[in-house]
Amino acid sequence: MRPGGLVALTNKIENYPGFESISGPDLAMKMFDQAEKLGMEVVFADVTNYELEGDVKKIITPEGVYEGRAIVLALGATARQLDLQSEREFAGRGVSYCATCDGNFYKDKIVAVVGGGNSSLSAVLYLANIAKKVYLVHRRDTFNAEAVQVQKMYSLTEGENAKVTFLPDSVIKDLEGNGKVEKMIIENQKTKEISEFAIDGVFVAIGRRPDTGFLNGKINLDKGGQIITDENMQTNVAGVYAAGDVRSGSLKQIVTACSDGAIAASRIIAYLNKR
Amino acid sequence: MRPGGLVALTNKIENYPGFESISGPDLAMKMFDQAEKLGMEVVFADVTNYELEGDVKKIITPEGVYEGRAIVLALGATARQLDLQSEREFAGRGVSYCATCDGNFYKDKIVAVVGGGNSSLSAVLYLANIAKKVYLVHRRDTFNAEAVQVQKMYSLTEGENAKVTFLPDSVIKDLEGNGKVEKMIIENQKTKEISEFAIDGVFVAIGRRPDTGFLNGKINLDKGGQIITDENMQTNVAGVYAAGDVRSGSLKQIVTACSDGAIAASRIIAYLNKR
Repeated sequence: MRPGGLVALTNKIENYPGFESISGPDLAMKMFDQAEKLGMEVVFADVTNYELEGDVKKIITPEGVYEGRAIVLALGATARQLDLQSEREFAGRGVSYCATCDGNFYKDKIVAVVGGGNSSLSAVLYLANIAKKVYLVHRRDTFNAEAVQVQKMYSLTEGENAKVTFLPDSVIKDLEGNGKVEKMIIENQKTKEISEFAIDGVFVAIGRRPDTGFLNGKINLDKGGQIITDENMQTNVAGVYAAGDVRSGSLKQIVTACSDGAIAASRIIAYLNKR
Repeated sequence: MRPGGLVALTNKIENYPGFESISGPDLAMKMFDQAEKLGMEVVFADVTNYELEGDVKKIITPEGVYEGRAIVLALGATARQLDLQSEREFAGRGVSYCATCDGNFYKDKIVAVVGGGNSSLSAVLYLANIAKKVYLVHRRDTFNAEAVQVQKMYSLTEGENAKVTFLPDSVIKDLEGNGKVEKMIIENQKTKEISEFAIDGVFVAIGRRPDTGFLNGKINLDKGGQIITDENMQTNVAGVYAAGDVRSGSLKQIVTACSDGAIAASRIIAYLNKR
């Protein structure tokens, strides 16, 4: 019941323009207070039902029914987790779900990336320019990603001082450390062999899960369950908009989510003025 | 030669998430310093020539030739002005070029909007919810705007306590005031009659002019001279991106410009990694 979503769970933010370094909860509260001072009214409540069709949208909660002629669905998304106790323990202290957000904290350090899709390969290529060493941990030996990305990753595994080490058929069984990530325990899925690697951070890039199942059949979603909008943030239903991480094609940064919100708000003003 | 463009010319900013109220130059310098600390190198120089085709883009200046495999055109835009001496004098002190940016500073005040297009009508409808009174000053009596917007504007001119007063065939001949806008002098173009109106602010909404003439025939521009991009901020030339006010369809807010930049940067990383 506190504002900010994933932002509020982020330790340190250095890629939001205007703040050299700020904690996630601090940035979230600044935005929240600012919006309240400009007239935002906030209701914290569980949504038990809703009606998005028709001229008046309805949000039904135990505290009451909220009505409006337009609505922005800013539902966020949750990064898929490895589901380790230690992963939760080290969240924000060596465990990250966003390489472009947190990569700069690992200058000349040793990091691991988990996953075998485009986002994990992008993370490897991005981190290879920052970190001293990057392990790529993938439970298979083939990738569900673009060939060029895969080739590029492999090219970085070559030579004596290779930046990248690829660990195929591997899963992280546990993370260890003293208050922060210092070590990963790897199990080879084929040989069942266990090995340890000293690391300073791990980037989990095995996908994101938006909580949009309840919208299925009413609002158009992409294969990953994200809400499809046009460039005006409008969904397939008139008066219903989406913004932020829940939106298909979103870059999933704080500043892009803010921008989505500004665009949606501006389009809603135009929408209301036209009726 | 100072950073910030139009932002640096803005007195007070209250619609950038994270800052309740900040001056334009301060916000611009914060972003500038932040980017420098993250490794941005800055060159202030007049561009005398350029090459955007080919794998390596070239920017030619008297100080040297700068090369890169990708480029972001963040050229900004200049609001069209009334071209009055007093307009320049009162810029930021009663003269504004953006209703959604500065409208909130005119709560219960008297304002004027200049122009006869969609953006001036949007400004009128927006400001009617904030200001005590809105004058619409337009040099003709017909509009180059959507009919619904026009009807909505007219509906606000009706009744004894009408929010909006429409001054057709009118131009502002001068602005007067003591350190800030307090009065506008209007000339009726048909009768040549002169009249005065007490106002607290004037919103000039007669269009924007991006400085992109030199790109004509090389980069696709819209009718207004703005750069056309796809949702990845990419222009029609590979490796050439655009961001901010210069971009066709941009909302022209600070946060949307920042978002454009984040998206362009992220796509450029992907573009470079694919080659």
